[in-house]
Amino acid sequence: MNQNKEIPYKIFLEENEMPKQWYNVRADMKTKPAPLLNPSTLKPMTAEELSVVFCDELVAQELNNDNAYLDIPQEILDFYKMYRPSPLVRAYCLEKKLDTPAKIYYKFEGNNTSGSHKLNSAIAQAYYAKKQGLKGVTTETGAGQWGTALSMACAYLELDCKVYMVKCSYEQKPFRREVMRTYGASVTPSPSDTTKIGRKILADHPNTTGSLGCAISEAVEVAVGSEGYRYVLGSVLNQVLLHQSIIGLEAKAALDKYDIKPDLIIGCAGGGSNLGGLISPFMGEKLRGEKDYRFIAVEPASCPSLTRGKFVYDFCDTGMVTPLAKMYTLGSNFIPSPNHSGGLRYHGMSSVLSQLYHDGYMEAISVEQTSVFEAAEMFAKVEGILPAPESSHAIRAAIDEALKCKETGEEKTILFGLTGTGYFDMVAYEKYNNGEMSDYIPTDEDLAVGFAGIPKFEGNEI
Amino acid sequence: MNQNKEIPYKIFLEENEMPKQWYNVRADMKTKPAPLLNPSTLKPMTAEELSVVFCDELVAQELNNDNAYLDIPQEILDFYKMYRPSPLVRAYCLEKKLDTPAKIYYKFEGNNTSGSHKLNSAIAQAYYAKKQGLKGVTTETGAGQWGTALSMACAYLELDCKVYMVKCSYEQKPFRREVMRTYGASVTPSPSDTTKIGRKILADHPNTTGSLGCAISEAVEVAVGSEGYRYVLGSVLNQVLLHQSIIGLEAKAALDKYDIKPDLIIGCAGGGSNLGGLISPFMGEKLRGEKDYRFIAVEPASCPSLTRGKFVYDFCDTGMVTPLAKMYTLGSNFIPSPNHSGGLRYHGMSSVLSQLYHDGYMEAISVEQTSVFEAAEMFAKVEGILPAPESSHAIRAAIDEALKCKETGEEKTILFGLTGTGYFDMVAYEKYNNGEMSDYIPTDEDLAVGFAGIPKFEGNEI
Repeated sequence: MNQNKEIPYKIFLEENEMPKQWYNVRADMKTKPAPLLNPSTLKPMTAEELSVVFCDELVAQELNNDNAYLDIPQEILDFYKMYRPSPLVRAYCLEKKLDTPAKIYYKFEGNNTSGSHKLNSAIAQAYYAKKQGLKGVTTETGAGQWGTALSMACAYLELDCKVYMVKCSYEQKPFRREVMRTYGASVTPSPSDTTKIGRKILADHPNTTGSLGCAISEAVEVAVGSEGYRYVLGSVLNQVLLHQSIIGLEAKAALDKYDIKPDLIIGCAGGGSNLGGLISPFMGEKLRGEKDYRFIAVEPASCPSLTRGKFVYDFCDTGMVTPLAKMYTLGSNFIPSPNHSGGLRYHGMSSVLSQLYHDGYMEAISVEQTSVFEAAEMFAKVEGILPAPESSHAIRAAIDEALKCKETGEEKTILFGLTGTGYFDMVAYEKYNNGEMSDYIPTDEDLAVGFAGIPKFEGNEI
Repeated sequence: MNQNKEIPYKIFLEENEMPKQWYNVRADMKTKPAPLLNPSTLKPMTAEELSVVFCDELVAQELNNDNAYLDIPQEILDFYKMYRPSPLVRAYCLEKKLDTPAKIYYKFEGNNTSGSHKLNSAIAQAYYAKKQGLKGVTTETGAGQWGTALSMACAYLELDCKVYMVKCSYEQKPFRREVMRTYGASVTPSPSDTTKIGRKILADHPNTTGSLGCAISEAVEVAVGSEGYRYVLGSVLNQVLLHQSIIGLEAKAALDKYDIKPDLIIGCAGGGSNLGGLISPFMGEKLRGEKDYRFIAVEPASCPSLTRGKFVYDFCDTGMVTPLAKMYTLGSNFIPSPNHSGGLRYHGMSSVLSQLYHDGYMEAISVEQTSVFEAAEMFAKVEGILPAPESSHAIRAAIDEALKCKETGEEKTILFGLTGTGYFDMVAYEKYNNGEMSDYIPTDEDLAVGFAGIPKFEGNEI
């Protein structure tokens, strides 16, 4: 409708243009993501079983493969209004710097204190916990974005919040801890001696720097063992992708206002929360055969679950206390090499995204971290936003695609997800600034160690 | 025009609604701010004299007391489009928390990587330096917001940037330094042995933690002594208030869309850059007798230039290398007590604001830092933004005014400036979280030490 209008630097939606429903991509998938399995019976987890760990309404969302649209409760819409809609930015300055005919857009989710898109699901999960009359929630955090987001949501709703933070991040990012504490959360470095599984992991691996898998085990143990608590998770789960669909819905609404159709949609992928949210409504159109898009998941070469993992059932945590999920996985005891900076360190990948990738609807690539920080620095200088290392994986890929367009002369439209800011990642930037950053690509032998931990049962051969 | 429309959480301007001119409040002042004086002749500084230190076009702006509106160059407008307009937020959640009939709005300037409003003037000053064909600029930074902003602007324009950072901030905020380095700036803790004045200050006060006044002296010395460099400053100067008028102009345009007239406009005040920018267009209406507003400057009790300083000519720096400015000052060798966290540590105050305050157009109050962090924490929890300590001074005052409305039942409309985010101030937040933050109000004896350094000449008695 605005076809002849000049595209502004930032396309904002008015409050009344904001989506009022989440979009559930599972409803349009021919092959649904495989159900979570109970590891002791190998039968699909029932709602009752799941409700020991998760809030009831979130369990319902987790299992809902049928409804394409779910209403966003008014309380959540009100919270969204405080920091959303997030801007959809035309990267004019980056295009100019690259001298590319490509048109680059990014959906910037970093303009809130959690510094990332994680708040979109944190407020939803905290809301349902509050609605159920719970006292509080437990969770894990890696880079710290999810923990911060959940602390903010819990402070807003006056819920207790216990965060298990991967030990190496806890030590590298003391200020993340203080933000969470300012929002009233308790933050424990993981593995810790506050849980049975933590004590076991510490006994077996006294020098471990921790992993998301360990921290999940601890947080689940505490939730299950505490009256009035449930566990919440910032990625991987179907419900998280549902909440994060707000990113893609807003992006699509903004692009539609100017009749812009992206050829290529790029997102970084750790557990899949941002990528899944960003691509959902576009993927829906592709699944329904209405429009075609290319989707590219970008993961770190040091934690390559999609590009080098196995598509099998695996535990979601290191302590093997969670259900089994069918996903691309590096094995639940896989821990990225210590030189890996930032997030995107989860051993698995959302079952939804794993299935879509397996079925050929999406591509995946991996990139090395020095090239990621190179892209981050260039982006920061021309676009004025210091990106999170995670988001910079998508920047790297977007720049590479734009440079290909420069060679071919194609005027492709590229959309990527800029999930967050790097203000709490300055230790990593300092390494990069000092020329001390290194890359590490796991060898096949490294990966074999992780794969060996994948549970073996009939039909689950790797 | 939108009188009956519901006020959204955030009022954004469209790109074509953004101001295209800065507003120069001096044009509407009956008593103009006193001119800068050459300390050796006590005569007003000429453009020629000033151009040794400042870029030519900025000198012209500094001396321009006549033109109410100045066109913003297209290149600066384009840069503004990357991170502006900044949102004008209705603080619905804070109002609810306070249970006040007051209507609270804030203009949020923290949604850019510099973390504050400082970028508005940084890009302008860097632009004029580039246009003059200079190699680079030098500056000082205290809390680090200005240095970060200038680094960003210089990276964008490919100018060299040398930052002298107050030593205690340099040590408390290593990550600020890394952000500036990521943008290609060199950062030196001040006082340093790289300048004559730095070496002298170090010899006289070997244990000094530095001050803005020292850092200014060093940056000016380097600019004057280096071919192709000029000095730039993030606050205090007339030109800075001019550039920062973009804050007030946008705020006013957004409020006007909904026919909202603030009764009370509140801003934190260090050197005056944010406060001056925010209030400018409203003050213009008051000066022209068109509308009345109350303006409140909020300063830290530990650095009370307006509320306890002298309105006299003083040096802008500790090393006494700058011109003399007529302003409310604590004396150019005043250094806030070491327990003072965050910015707002300058010994003086913008000549424009000083004159307006002196003439009764504006009020000023001072607040203590533990009460400021209390307000910051409450605000963070309900409004979802972790504020900079500086900005939190304005939050404190806005909350106090809203609570007065609760007592009286008045439905006042309060607008305050939320200048930035606190992501690099977590050392201070940690102190607060641990109950280790203290207050310090300088005694009259403390202040007498600073006053003793004010130059004495006829007509400049304190």
